[in-house]
Amino acid sequence: MTYEVTPWTVKGNVDYDALTEKFGTQKIDENLLERIKKHTGDLHHFLRRKIFFSHRDLNFLLDEYEKGNKFFLYTGRAPSGKVHLGHLIPWMFTKWLQDKFDVELFFQFPDEEKFLFKENLSFEDTEKALYDNMTDVIAVGFNPEKTHFLIDTKHANLMYKEACKVAKKITLSTAKATFGFTDENNIGEIFYTAMQAVPSFLPSVIYNKKIPCLIPCAIDQDPHFRLARDVLPKLNFYKPSVIHSIFLPGLKGMEEQGKMSSSEEQTAIFTTDNEKTVRKKIMKYAFSGGQATVEEHRKKGGNPDIDVSYQWLVFFEEDDEKLHKIYEDYRSGALLTGELKEILTDKLNGYLRTHRERREKAGDLMDKFIFKP
Amino acid sequence: MTYEVTPWTVKGNVDYDALTEKFGTQKIDENLLERIKKHTGDLHHFLRRKIFFSHRDLNFLLDEYEKGNKFFLYTGRAPSGKVHLGHLIPWMFTKWLQDKFDVELFFQFPDEEKFLFKENLSFEDTEKALYDNMTDVIAVGFNPEKTHFLIDTKHANLMYKEACKVAKKITLSTAKATFGFTDENNIGEIFYTAMQAVPSFLPSVIYNKKIPCLIPCAIDQDPHFRLARDVLPKLNFYKPSVIHSIFLPGLKGMEEQGKMSSSEEQTAIFTTDNEKTVRKKIMKYAFSGGQATVEEHRKKGGNPDIDVSYQWLVFFEEDDEKLHKIYEDYRSGALLTGELKEILTDKLNGYLRTHRERREKAGDLMDKFIFKP
Repeated sequence: MTYEVTPWTVKGNVDYDALTEKFGTQKIDENLLERIKKHTGDLHHFLRRKIFFSHRDLNFLLDEYEKGNKFFLYTGRAPSGKVHLGHLIPWMFTKWLQDKFDVELFFQFPDEEKFLFKENLSFEDTEKALYDNMTDVIAVGFNPEKTHFLIDTKHANLMYKEACKVAKKITLSTAKATFGFTDENNIGEIFYTAMQAVPSFLPSVIYNKKIPCLIPCAIDQDPHFRLARDVLPKLNFYKPSVIHSIFLPGLKGMEEQGKMSSSEEQTAIFTTDNEKTVRKKIMKYAFSGGQATVEEHRKKGGNPDIDVSYQWLVFFEEDDEKLHKIYEDYRSGALLTGELKEILTDKLNGYLRTHRERREKAGDLMDKFIFKP
Repeated sequence: MTYEVTPWTVKGNVDYDALTEKFGTQKIDENLLERIKKHTGDLHHFLRRKIFFSHRDLNFLLDEYEKGNKFFLYTGRAPSGKVHLGHLIPWMFTKWLQDKFDVELFFQFPDEEKFLFKENLSFEDTEKALYDNMTDVIAVGFNPEKTHFLIDTKHANLMYKEACKVAKKITLSTAKATFGFTDENNIGEIFYTAMQAVPSFLPSVIYNKKIPCLIPCAIDQDPHFRLARDVLPKLNFYKPSVIHSIFLPGLKGMEEQGKMSSSEEQTAIFTTDNEKTVRKKIMKYAFSGGQATVEEHRKKGGNPDIDVSYQWLVFFEEDDEKLHKIYEDYRSGALLTGELKEILTDKLNGYLRTHRERREKAGDLMDKFIFKP
């Protein structure tokens, strides 16, 4: 089975075990989960279910935390187009971490990234997407007192100089090996990773002390932070710790489609999709693990492990017992594919209803969220 | 005779004719001088003596000027170390152009450039140099009402986004071909030329109309602007026009040393050198075209064409008649090397006395010069 995972493309049925080996990250084991639980009281279902499954240096981060040296969180969103459910996964988890550990969050909007990497995208496009995307991030419910938006082109007075410090430590040769750049890439693409490194140490610059950093992200972003981890100690900062998630598949599933992607509108669920649209997309496109006929399904049962509706419920149904029952009922044939899709539709529409309500009020909060140096 | 001219190194006895052919620039001919003179009334001795000898698109610039579409000037200084006489040459000429054409000047201080290109230079070093260098630029006498300093890391909110627009249009392949980069260069060096392009169109962005730009610079900087000229029309700006100077040699001359260089302290004259130091350096190091003994010199005469003191007077003695007499007297043997060096010493110390006086008052003006968007 072939697959591809880069910061720009995720295709095919990803072998996450092989990926952690290839990237050199650690899998999150039971000991580490117990250690986290000591501080958080309970475990987010993303941790219980290994949706966040891999990490770098989480033990160092907890060592420092236990010594009283609090970390900050860093995650981000490159503005371009609308936000879909796949984007929300790391943000939902980041919110949980912020609440449990009561820490600052620096949220980067690298509004030049997609501009540089997409031929036909203009800064007018990214600017529009930026404001739209910021309302989605606010709607996730981050603490406005402790969350700081960094917008690359608008915070460049703060960030460009720091990016140069990083850039000086990365040779073209290293950038090529890490990202697979060729001579046809533009020089902005080549430089960009230096900007993405900045939020991982900027608070240490601002507060003038070494502060540990934790980056929750989908694992495709790891190459950026692998580079940052090489460079930061040379600049006398801590290596950032990273915690990685698997990908939320598109409605057609990982094998056919890969992760949920904005460019495939029909098979992604956007935060602005209304209830009818959500229902229609799921009914029409969600790859089913069920049998060809009701009779056959009742007799042989369905396969939840390849069923996208079930896979999505693993992300969105917090209740372990409910989820387990759905699994068993689908496996036995008691639950039909249409019924499973109804359960998912209700779950998502409930979630999105709340999200959209908060989204509508987000505009008033925006100024509070934008970092003021 | 071998020589090397890149934005970072100028060594050897430069063949300027060959260089204009290699770079594809135009030599400034008598017609063009006449055309300039129509507007300026007289010609600066840098033009009369072909110290500014080459250009790109000066006729386009004058066409636009004659239609009432005024250009702006753009030149710069990458802060690092002290300012020497070689740096002053394009600035003196830029001041003359500003006065004669009554135009705005955007003066860039790319404070990241030397940081990126010099292994052991820190941002603390460039910051110190920045303030020192700004006082020298102010001391040249630019119009404070019409001169605007752009400091890359401090005006990055204004510049970084524009640099990304340029960077998107430059492939790694083009950057390598233009600057000779290898895989060992860092990714900041690779990106930097995009920042150097920005002031050539930033006023067009700020004032929201296409404004022609004229860049006076030593010819080693041409590769940056050659790239900018390829890119700017794609962003719907005019190609910047460029006017190029030859190099002020170091005291040991072009052949042995190349252009004046801050890293060779003994053979460069800094604006902060006192009168004694200026005298000492000239007496000790200025390469002489004279004969071995006074007797021989009186008999055979000296060679002003290879004499560095004489070459420097071509830059600093405005009076054509005086210069001509010095040339003839040195050639005939009537003027001894020691006497020629005295003439140069007096000339430079006179110039530097005024410069230092203005330099001391420059601090008060600094805020006025720094561009406020």
